[in-house]
Amino acid sequence: MAIHTLEPTRFFNLLGLREPPALVLRPGDSVRTWTLDAHGFDQHEKQVGERPNPLTGPFHVEGAEPGDALAVRLDGLQPNRSGCWSHRYLAENALEPSSVRRLPEQAYIRWNIDRKRRTVSPAEPPAGLELPLKPMLGCIGTSPADGQVLSTATAGTHGGNMDYPGIAEGATIYLPVFVSGGELYLGDGHATQGDGEIAGSGTEVSFDVRFTVNLLKGRRIGCPRGENAEWLFTLGNARPLEQALQQATSEMVRWLEQDYALEPASIGLLLGQAVRYQLANVFDPAYTMVCKVPKWSLRRP
Amino acid sequence: MAIHTLEPTRFFNLLGLREPPALVLRPGDSVRTWTLDAHGFDQHEKQVGERPNPLTGPFHVEGAEPGDALAVRLDGLQPNRSGCWSHRYLAENALEPSSVRRLPEQAYIRWNIDRKRRTVSPAEPPAGLELPLKPMLGCIGTSPADGQVLSTATAGTHGGNMDYPGIAEGATIYLPVFVSGGELYLGDGHATQGDGEIAGSGTEVSFDVRFTVNLLKGRRIGCPRGENAEWLFTLGNARPLEQALQQATSEMVRWLEQDYALEPASIGLLLGQAVRYQLANVFDPAYTMVCKVPKWSLRRP
Amino acid sequence: MAIHTLEPTRFFNLLGLREPPALVLRPGDSVRTWTLDAHGFDQHEKQVGERPNPLTGPFHVEGAEPGDALAVRLDGLQPNRSGCWSHRYLAENALEPSSVRRLPEQAYIRWNIDRKRRTVSPAEPPAGLELPLKPMLGCIGTSPADGQVLSTATAGTHGGNMDYPGIAEGATIYLPVFVSGGELYLGDGHATQGDGEIAGSGTEVSFDVRFTVNLLKGRRIGCPRGENAEWLFTLGNARPLEQALQQATSEMVRWLEQDYALEPASIGLLLGQAVRYQLANVFDPAYTMVCKVPKWSLRRP
Amino acid sequence: MAIHTLEPTRFFNLLGLREPPALVLRPGDSVRTWTLDAHGFDQHEKQVGERPNPLTGPFHVEGAEPGDALAVRLDGLQPNRSGCWSHRYLAENALEPSSVRRLPEQAYIRWNIDRKRRTVSPAEPPAGLELPLKPMLGCIGTSPADGQVLSTATAGTHGGNMDYPGIAEGATIYLPVFVSGGELYLGDGHATQGDGEIAGSGTEVSFDVRFTVNLLKGRRIGCPRGENAEWLFTLGNARPLEQALQQATSEMVRWLEQDYALEPASIGLLLGQAVRYQLANVFDPAYTMVCKVPKWSLRRP
Repeated sequence: MAIHTLEPTRFFNLLGLREPPALVLRPGDSVRTWTLDAHGFDQHEKQVGERPNPLTGPFHVEGAEPGDALAVRLDGLQPNRSGCWSHRYLAENALEPSSVRRLPEQAYIRWNIDRKRRTVSPAEPPAGLELPLKPMLGCIGTSPADGQVLSTATAGTHGGNMDYPGIAEGATIYLPVFVSGGELYLGDGHATQGDGEIAGSGTEVSFDVRFTVNLLKGRRIGCPRGENAEWLFTLGNARPLEQALQQATSEMVRWLEQDYALEPASIGLLLGQAVRYQLANVFDPAYTMVCKVPKWSLRRP
Repeated sequence: MAIHTLEPTRFFNLLGLREPPALVLRPGDSVRTWTLDAHGFDQHEKQVGERPNPLTGPFHVEGAEPGDALAVRLDGLQPNRSGCWSHRYLAENALEPSSVRRLPEQAYIRWNIDRKRRTVSPAEPPAGLELPLKPMLGCIGTSPADGQVLSTATAGTHGGNMDYPGIAEGATIYLPVFVSGGELYLGDGHATQGDGEIAGSGTEVSFDVRFTVNLLKGRRIGCPRGENAEWLFTLGNARPLEQALQQATSEMVRWLEQDYALEPASIGLLLGQAVRYQLANVFDPAYTMVCKVPKWSLRRP
Repeated sequence: MAIHTLEPTRFFNLLGLREPPALVLRPGDSVRTWTLDAHGFDQHEKQVGERPNPLTGPFHVEGAEPGDALAVRLDGLQPNRSGCWSHRYLAENALEPSSVRRLPEQAYIRWNIDRKRRTVSPAEPPAGLELPLKPMLGCIGTSPADGQVLSTATAGTHGGNMDYPGIAEGATIYLPVFVSGGELYLGDGHATQGDGEIAGSGTEVSFDVRFTVNLLKGRRIGCPRGENAEWLFTLGNARPLEQALQQATSEMVRWLEQDYALEPASIGLLLGQAVRYQLANVFDPAYTMVCKVPKWSLRRP
Repeated sequence: MAIHTLEPTRFFNLLGLREPPALVLRPGDSVRTWTLDAHGFDQHEKQVGERPNPLTGPFHVEGAEPGDALAVRLDGLQPNRSGCWSHRYLAENALEPSSVRRLPEQAYIRWNIDRKRRTVSPAEPPAGLELPLKPMLGCIGTSPADGQVLSTATAGTHGGNMDYPGIAEGATIYLPVFVSGGELYLGDGHATQGDGEIAGSGTEVSFDVRFTVNLLKGRRIGCPRGENAEWLFTLGNARPLEQALQQATSEMVRWLEQDYALEPASIGLLLGQAVRYQLANVFDPAYTMVCKVPKWSLRRP
């Protein structure tokens, strides 16, 4: 259970390239490293990677084989500079077609992080807007299925650009393994982000990241899953939203059957009254819908 | 600002019929009344209305004319019996098509409300499941636009069967007026409901209801809106989910422009980082997606 | 089998109003009448009806009861004036959101019908464009299910504004009966129309119409069907397109089971290799997708 | 303008691998080669490739660079054996969710080609079904954009598994070039196929193929285009169907602006009344919708 430190020098816009690993990890190992912002700028605002979403990795996990799952616990996620940026428009996909014409064109705006107050504020009007700092990773994924090489702009059963605010410190993300070693990548930090990422970005910034990897042998999962202190969650990545929702719900049904010994009818009863959905993004080539079950609802006397 | 009591004797499965009003209200008036469950059963479990979603009303608001909006503050919403029921399956729309065949067929299950503990528990396994009692109205709406008469099974710009858990005690719901008097209807109480209503029902029960109506003259709104202590919200009703989301987001943009004097670019900045979406239903003929903005994000020093 | 002539004086923008019939027909009866264009203008370009799509009717069919179907054979459909009009833009729904901003705003253009050459040509550039005259009815429908009253702007299981070019002379359209008498309405003639009605209109014109009604007792159909010399077809009306397609395909499966004694597996084999789809409209509140099976593929030695 | 003959020995399930070319072609060159069926079986029913859709190629076109387009004229497409196979079920995506449970499970069926009569008939009931032989290629594509490597199961702006019956003898298909040489692949022959490929397959068979490649320098296209004697067509590949349709329509608008000097308003007028859509597939990971304009409608006196 070693603790590794990685000063990355290569950043990747594609998952599945089968590049030499940045680090070889054993299950239980932890890593301290850092990530670039979505345009490739580091903590000194120097551009060392290319658009879109240049990721840190790959992390090769010894013993990981197709049909296993990686468990990635996010031990620490912190912006490592105070300046971040976002789009200031609204995505066409989030608006009625008849509203699109009167919207402003895409533009960028700077934000400042106040680490003491743990807030994020725009450097421009509307003055006085102050959002809570809630660091999250826009991208986390493994090498995709079937030998495909996929852009870090999109997402799939391997994860990728899911833009879910729940990929945050304290969460454990489960990812399917499709190639030997799994080949984990991560990056695209956001200081904060609304549901749906309807601006087409969060407040984009470089991060210091600490994480611990474990290996679940023989744990075949259909798409990314995760958990934190309060929730189990599954992430469906597809268009349209209905398909993303269907993937996430079906994966949650499988999870509850496998690990909680619930029968389909009991699952229907539980999910019907206790499920929550969170719209992660409705902007990327694959939308992401998250199906959430509160852990308290699964505890039995 | 009278307080009326209505013991309803007629219940309606259609909105827009232009029936004689159950009550004529002045702006500011309050009403105490009750509603049936979705299958038409009252507090004594006696069937006095027909499926689907028989509603109480219509309430005619004096002075309400097309182009105005009603503001309906929900002062009290309480189940008036302890037994409720739900479906125990999962809707096909919420599952991957390949998962549908292995699901159980639709069936019903009974639940019991414990009013002291404010919980709802199934009368059958999985034993030990206990959900918080969170009463909500599945249906609230006015007479629809363009002279249409629409089933209480569906929803539209007039409201209707939206199945949003936020239509709860303490919330104020804003509804467009399309005919003289507005003609308000409500019912379809749920003791609790998961996001998306993916079982095809909440825990369905009859309610005691108290509400106060106000009239916003000349307040033209595009679809239902609402607010409570923490949130502004707008409700888009359409299929597919993208269209419901687009309606809700565009309506929120209009609201922020009208009442908060925000410019489109500032709205993009605010919504992009602070918006929340909640999936109300993905089961009814029209799906309902809710766009939510936290009130704290709109306060300025 | 009488032949009636109706000079209509009332036109309807809603289906389901239960108005006194314009004519009472017996099964087998034929009617000669005329219809207005979509904005309510008659053959003399005089406005005698209101937008949208004012229809001629209702035609009450004696003996028609819920669970039956009407068969409406379109014996003659001819524009009764030479001037028609269309939109000249493209609907936002038919274009990538990023293309929408650069499009021209909606505008109208006049077209002229040359009855001798059987062509339709714009009265403005692009000069030389000459389309074949292919008269069709945009709207045909009965009183909707469940007591609803629906606008002639939309479509559903009762038919309505389907905008399918196959609703043409020589076709027989089958419509479900939901109320006593069925209550048939028709109108919204187009001299020609592209697939999808992506301009938001055909070339809109008033029509002389001849049709014959028959009654299929006990013939329960799920949505409109039709046939002509070459095709069986079913019309799914819904959003999104996938749902319209699913309705149309499922209805075709039921038809082939009922009337052609094909088993589901044989139907799969036949439809998989021989089905055709035609996109009727992707503009109206409900889109219309048509599932077509060539009659030759159903003939057996 | 050489004529090459390729006896392929390698077959590919991924596009974008940057493998050494099977042949290096000059613009104007022709090729005679053959392709496997979708399961990898050759003309002797011997399996020499793997699922899904093993393709013949890559063909490297000298001088092709990103921003150019390939023009691939299909000179000859003929099944090279008489036995083919299809699925005999219907895809869940093509049916109402409530119809899915009663459908038969997926199964295979054999078909026989009669080359003299030019027909295809199932080797099992329904006896007497005889479809016209209409050979088409399910897959044709180049190396994808952005360095991605994509499965031959899906489609995108590079083409791929589009399953459009119009990719037939006599058609010329235009494909974007994203890497030097373009890297053309083709295969997945169908003896016949219904619209939408709703069985999840055509009648799958190995083919003899002849084609001629040309290079359009500086011809930047957004997605595959094609033409034959009668039609211009564009192929949108996406989910949901609306997005595929929007891509195809927007690409057609660009084509008409570029090559036919039509203004947007005239394009609206033309497409609105003369466009045709054909649903190529509603089964693959990306659906394919084809936008078609008849060539006669573009001729001017």
